[in-house]
Amino acid sequence: VGSGTNPGRDGALALKATIEYDGTDFFGFQVQASERTVQGEVERALEALTAEPVRVIGAGRTDRGVHAQGQVIGFRARWSHSVVDLQRALNAVLPGDVAVLALDVAPEDFHPRYSALSRRYRYTILNRPWRSALIRRTCWHVERELDVERMNQASQALIGSQDFGTFGRPPGGRDKTSVREVLDARWKEQGALLTFEIEANAFLYRMVRSIVGTLTQVGWGQISVDDFRAMLEARDHSLIRRVAPAQGLCLMQVNYAAREGVLQ
Amino acid sequence: VGSGTNPGRDGALALKATIEYDGTDFFGFQVQASERTVQGEVERALEALTAEPVRVIGAGRTDRGVHAQGQVIGFRARWSHSVVDLQRALNAVLPGDVAVLALDVAPEDFHPRYSALSRRYRYTILNRPWRSALIRRTCWHVERELDVERMNQASQALIGSQDFGTFGRPPGGRDKTSVREVLDARWKEQGALLTFEIEANAFLYRMVRSIVGTLTQVGWGQISVDDFRAMLEARDHSLIRRVAPAQGLCLMQVNYAAREGVLQ
Repeated sequence: VGSGTNPGRDGALALKATIEYDGTDFFGFQVQASERTVQGEVERALEALTAEPVRVIGAGRTDRGVHAQGQVIGFRARWSHSVVDLQRALNAVLPGDVAVLALDVAPEDFHPRYSALSRRYRYTILNRPWRSALIRRTCWHVERELDVERMNQASQALIGSQDFGTFGRPPGGRDKTSVREVLDARWKEQGALLTFEIEANAFLYRMVRSIVGTLTQVGWGQISVDDFRAMLEARDHSLIRRVAPAQGLCLMQVNYAAREGVLQ
Repeated sequence: VGSGTNPGRDGALALKATIEYDGTDFFGFQVQASERTVQGEVERALEALTAEPVRVIGAGRTDRGVHAQGQVIGFRARWSHSVVDLQRALNAVLPGDVAVLALDVAPEDFHPRYSALSRRYRYTILNRPWRSALIRRTCWHVERELDVERMNQASQALIGSQDFGTFGRPPGGRDKTSVREVLDARWKEQGALLTFEIEANAFLYRMVRSIVGTLTQVGWGQISVDDFRAMLEARDHSLIRRVAPAQGLCLMQVNYAAREGVLQ
């Protein structure tokens, strides 16, 4: 894709990037004064390459310590070379813990958050007596054995469009409701590694971590599957006793309608 | 296993541990004055727990930056509680980048290096144009496409007992020969991840990294499969042009005869 593709009235291209990051050494995605953030690093790299201030918008505002394999960001930039050259330049300039996996020209009205149809997160638990050194940054080490089948039974209650007020609060801004539609929620077991994948149109603040924390109580038999269902129906955030730690969580994918994602 | 199992004449137990480590922040396995090493951290933890100096011996002296999922160490320690308690205490005291995965009482004459029958290493290449943020510490990012089938053809020349002088030098000490027996050597492809697993009775210094570096030249067509075979037969270390970087390498397993590994 050459530089002439789809320039806006200001001569800037609307761009969509898929980025991966290791959240360990970031204070979350969103820019904060005087803290190291993913958005801040990407904006700094874009400014270094285009010699102009660039504003980056992310599809999901991941918390401090949360990772991403498929965060989507949108921005407008003036760039006189090819898009693939910009991707290469960004990967050369960005620090090792952020990488640009894909970069494409987007429709002028593309907004990574409002255009998104759904998000998919993965939560990883290492369920064995002994911790791991190699994957310590990307999993939650849970020593006591969990009953994955019970956790999967309880997870089925999450499917569908309903009020998830028990598991989180709306992030504020435009959106004041805590109704969300969960499209998929299931646990998989591979040896000692338990992974939970959950897809929803959108998520409340700390929703996945509150669900995973509560599901571990189900996995230990502290809460029955029926209790879990009753907690969900109570819409009472004060019922939450366990919030799973950030480092096990990863934003895997953000889905868009085919026409909105990328210009063909 | 209680404290009374198999104490030596000095009242100490011979112990065998399987350990995992993230080599990124270590100057290799072996103790060096004033550098952070895996052996140093484990000895320090054992001394803190037993209030005595403890000497640790490793099955393989991994280089700076090399990882392990299955390094085996041996040591003698006086410990008045159970072995499982010692494993738990070690994992509590050791830093996050070293973990003890297994701990067992060993025969009195157990030596992790001399008793080992074979070692298995894995080398991981990420073969795609864009680097990764999440697995950057445990793979070698190779942008140019590699022909894995050709690399596998060349790898077959490694199998068997032969002089590997082209790919490394003997570590010194007892062993002056560069003859080794390679039992298995093959590449697997999973999307952009290429993993090379190689098992041998023992390895020369930097042998796996020299083999992998040279095999990437085969994968790019710079060296033919026949050239690779000829290089191996030349027994000339000066032929090596590429040594793969440390961070892609991981010591996976050390194998012992059933009777020598662990007291049943």
